[in-house]
Amino acid sequence: MRAVFVGFGNVGQRLAAMLTVERSSFPGLKDLHLKTVGIFTRRRGSLVDAAGIDLGKALQQFRENSRFPAAPVTVLQALETLDYDVLVELSTLSIADKGEPAISHVRSALKRGLHVVTANKGPAAFAYRKLAALARKNKAQFLFESAVMDGTPIFSLGRALHGLSVTGFSGIFNTTTNFVLSRLEAGESMDAAVRTAQRLGFAEADPSLDLEGWDAAAKTAILANVFLDADIDPLQVERRGIGDLTSAAVAKAAAAGRRVKLICRAGLENGKVRTQVGPEEVPMDHLFAAVSGKGAALRLETDMMGPLWIIQEEPGLSDTAAGVLQDLFTVASSR
Amino acid sequence: MRAVFVGFGNVGQRLAAMLTVERSSFPGLKDLHLKTVGIFTRRRGSLVDAAGIDLGKALQQFRENSRFPAAPVTVLQALETLDYDVLVELSTLSIADKGEPAISHVRSALKRGLHVVTANKGPAAFAYRKLAALARKNKAQFLFESAVMDGTPIFSLGRALHGLSVTGFSGIFNTTTNFVLSRLEAGESMDAAVRTAQRLGFAEADPSLDLEGWDAAAKTAILANVFLDADIDPLQVERRGIGDLTSAAVAKAAAAGRRVKLICRAGLENGKVRTQVGPEEVPMDHLFAAVSGKGAALRLETDMMGPLWIIQEEPGLSDTAAGVLQDLFTVASSR
Repeated sequence: MRAVFVGFGNVGQRLAAMLTVERSSFPGLKDLHLKTVGIFTRRRGSLVDAAGIDLGKALQQFRENSRFPAAPVTVLQALETLDYDVLVELSTLSIADKGEPAISHVRSALKRGLHVVTANKGPAAFAYRKLAALARKNKAQFLFESAVMDGTPIFSLGRALHGLSVTGFSGIFNTTTNFVLSRLEAGESMDAAVRTAQRLGFAEADPSLDLEGWDAAAKTAILANVFLDADIDPLQVERRGIGDLTSAAVAKAAAAGRRVKLICRAGLENGKVRTQVGPEEVPMDHLFAAVSGKGAALRLETDMMGPLWIIQEEPGLSDTAAGVLQDLFTVASSR
Repeated sequence: MRAVFVGFGNVGQRLAAMLTVERSSFPGLKDLHLKTVGIFTRRRGSLVDAAGIDLGKALQQFRENSRFPAAPVTVLQALETLDYDVLVELSTLSIADKGEPAISHVRSALKRGLHVVTANKGPAAFAYRKLAALARKNKAQFLFESAVMDGTPIFSLGRALHGLSVTGFSGIFNTTTNFVLSRLEAGESMDAAVRTAQRLGFAEADPSLDLEGWDAAAKTAILANVFLDADIDPLQVERRGIGDLTSAAVAKAAAAGRRVKLICRAGLENGKVRTQVGPEEVPMDHLFAAVSGKGAALRLETDMMGPLWIIQEEPGLSDTAAGVLQDLFTVASSR
């Protein structure tokens, strides 16, 4: 299966390492046969080789030089003309650009009937309905398992719930704010907590994406689009961040037996889907309160069963890459 | 799709109601077309009609008379001779009979290349490897989603984790003991707590199956067989129940900030799978401690990701039926 990568940041590099130097540590990868014919980055050059790029060498080269050579073609030119089977879109979410340029990348592949696997939240958050329709029409896969809760198989699970209807959900989707809130409760300042999250490598470079709830809103929009057929984007999610919370306020809640969490919610109200993101105080014995540190959680409500929880405990660096790999297997088995 | 039901207890009756009188409440069922050609019970008669049994009428008749007419054939004769596509095995686990007669029922269907959906823990707990091999050989489905954590899609999720290897798991699988332990912590006696669970309809008629850890051991064996290729049965699981726990002991742990839970564990030790069931004290801020009342939880460890949790919050009467329905959809889509 021939792949083109767009984006070669933390996730792309992790993926490249798992597929090459670390491959023997992951016995499940033995059946995945991927030939990389292009790697494109926004500001750090590109590689193209129809005969197949040595991903291990490319990774080493990128780490040594912090870039690839200059690209002979633009990303869109490449996606429209190269021979490949699956686009692996790993660029990062832009709220300001409403999910672009990732949406254009995805559309370009799907238009040609080529499969798409993306860890970028933009396409499913800003253009899910159109892209999913395009994928169906052209018999291509449009997969984004790692866009919400990394490799935790949320969307696979949704596809497995045959016969059930999802009626709503709530969750803790943003790891950085969950971590920061734990630190505030322990008495640390907002600034210090954010700096720690950045140093540990899981906060966005622009912390407002996390702190103002944009990342959580994007994930809420994706889940509402997929599970509740909502056709909304992150700008339509009612949103309050945690930027104005203080350690004192969080400690006061804790003293009263309550824990502050950034909770995302979606449900039907008068036949319309309502989505919200904002800090809430939850009782200490609630499952949300037990989702600590870098954890995340989804509570899914259906018409047939009691609420179903999926919780991610302390995701590591490979969790997002694992979601991309699951999607690549799904594409491979669909061919 | 023509189905034969074996067993018509709580789950069978719930399923029959959801497929008939309640059908309009579950829009997801519109694509499931099931023709029931036989219903067999162990001691309460049977129905056979190649032209299709009216499941709604059969349910009403069974509730009025507490039985069906006497059977013209035995279950095994029927499974070997009737024309059907899927066996829906809903009889109950027998530890004493090592999963029989359910295992024979399942084998009889699979031998003919017919699909099997079962909520009975026996077949996968006592004979997983042989039955799974038989199913593969004869290109038939052998599904048992509701055998562990009701309709929570544990096994679907396992199938979705492409490329990952499961390295171990732990969990709270027995609802009755979890409920009883909560009551003990609240100061109730063991006898009173068990009676409440029986009155609410979710304890086994023979409470020792729950209290001595047999139900938990059966579920642990199934998960170890499926996820860790263990080839063990419930008798090989190291097992301690909660029968000798007192309210005072549980309260003492609670006063020390710890909660008693019946925890199931499986992992690799010196290249062999080790499985255990027994009461453990967990810290109050642990996710296991937050699984209250009738809840259940699975913590799955893999080679690529941080631990993945699936938690069932207060399952209702339809949860087990929902698992059977998911499996029936899987069978239908495989045909």
